[in-house]
Amino acid sequence: MGKIICTGLGPGDPDLISVRSDRLIRAARHVAYFRKAGRPGQARRIVEGMLAPHVTEYPMEYPVTTELPFGSVEYKQLLASFYDNWATKLAAQAATSDVVVLCEGDPLFYGSFMHLHERLHGRADVEIVPGINGMTGCWNATGIPMTWGDDVLAVLMGTLPEEDLLRHMQSADALVVMKTGRNLPKVRRALDRAGRLADAWLVERGTMPGQRVTRLAETEIAECPYFATVLVHGQGRRPEAEE
Amino acid sequence: MGKIICTGLGPGDPDLISVRSDRLIRAARHVAYFRKAGRPGQARRIVEGMLAPHVTEYPMEYPVTTELPFGSVEYKQLLASFYDNWATKLAAQAATSDVVVLCEGDPLFYGSFMHLHERLHGRADVEIVPGINGMTGCWNATGIPMTWGDDVLAVLMGTLPEEDLLRHMQSADALVVMKTGRNLPKVRRALDRAGRLADAWLVERGTMPGQRVTRLAETEIAECPYFATVLVHGQGRRPEAEE
Repeated sequence: MGKIICTGLGPGDPDLISVRSDRLIRAARHVAYFRKAGRPGQARRIVEGMLAPHVTEYPMEYPVTTELPFGSVEYKQLLASFYDNWATKLAAQAATSDVVVLCEGDPLFYGSFMHLHERLHGRADVEIVPGINGMTGCWNATGIPMTWGDDVLAVLMGTLPEEDLLRHMQSADALVVMKTGRNLPKVRRALDRAGRLADAWLVERGTMPGQRVTRLAETEIAECPYFATVLVHGQGRRPEAEE
Repeated sequence: MGKIICTGLGPGDPDLISVRSDRLIRAARHVAYFRKAGRPGQARRIVEGMLAPHVTEYPMEYPVTTELPFGSVEYKQLLASFYDNWATKLAAQAATSDVVVLCEGDPLFYGSFMHLHERLHGRADVEIVPGINGMTGCWNATGIPMTWGDDVLAVLMGTLPEEDLLRHMQSADALVVMKTGRNLPKVRRALDRAGRLADAWLVERGTMPGQRVTRLAETEIAECPYFATVLVHGQGRRPEAEE
């Protein structure tokens, strides 16, 4: 009787994987990971050179989305059955041996594995090993402290409406905006309206080969990758009334 | 000519230290860490059994605060000269050999090392190795996904005024409240006013021996440790207009 072990891979540099995940990945006989169809996949790329010689690999390829709009009912159904099928396959495999699932960043922080996790409840033992999340890799790439003292940090998705982005950008001290890509012009407008564009950084491929750290206001945003992250560092808020 | 290497230790379980930090810590000849006077210190405790036999240790003991109010000018001056002195000592040591500084969690996320970092600028080479931050260890301790889809995450300090806490608790989807301790009654009131107390968890010593995970509404909060963390998990926000 095996179990499903989801290992957080951290932000991209294999040297930033935890000791526990590193050990589990190297010893694994069965390894599953998400990827886009026809791509090597970021998770698989991180562990290149680490897998045992006779490992069995299970690339879990997201359904192709060119035909269906991303938010449509049909696409959601397609995605749900994709997760259903893989939960069933992994649970069947875990009946006889451990399966290690590779997850970029931290598995419980905006991770795809969570969709398998909720489907595996009661069907297989699941163990999750935390990882350094991608945003932590990004602010380390800037070399600047992210939060001090009583700074409020808001983590936002670029997919949010501009007015929602603006409201959070005005009320929090430190900001992280993920899922930027084609949303970047909107994110930039919201930062500008909040008076925070001058302090914003864009981090592409944080801790990975080809890492790029630039000031957002000075960056050509035409071909920004979807996983680029925007950061505004906190300045060390002190509460007035107390402490 | 050496350098100062600040290694993130992660949330507490030594098995969650990154491969790179683990290697640096085990090879270190000079190791510095913060602690309260007369205490072993959490950072030092995490690396117990990992240090090389003839390592030189530099416990950096925070100035004692019983005489002075925490937010007073005098205390701030005392703390500033404490950081000044240690930056000078570490820079002097780094002139001849590497010094590894141990930092709980991630060094650039509300970390004490940042106060040394800004003082070391131009005086020593500094390398920082990211770590899994404490809050990630805490939500992994609950075993529940922290954020899904377009959830907004707000990270708040329990030291903030109640009205600030309330405002962020009403507008974000997922919540982390750190530095709770004696602020916990205020944090709990704010969560209750925001209608979110029933969904709040309290995590003490996340990933460490004696870990405790309880529902905040059902928890006796009289002797809550300062580093206990309050969490409200996101439910998977979907933007209405787009995705």
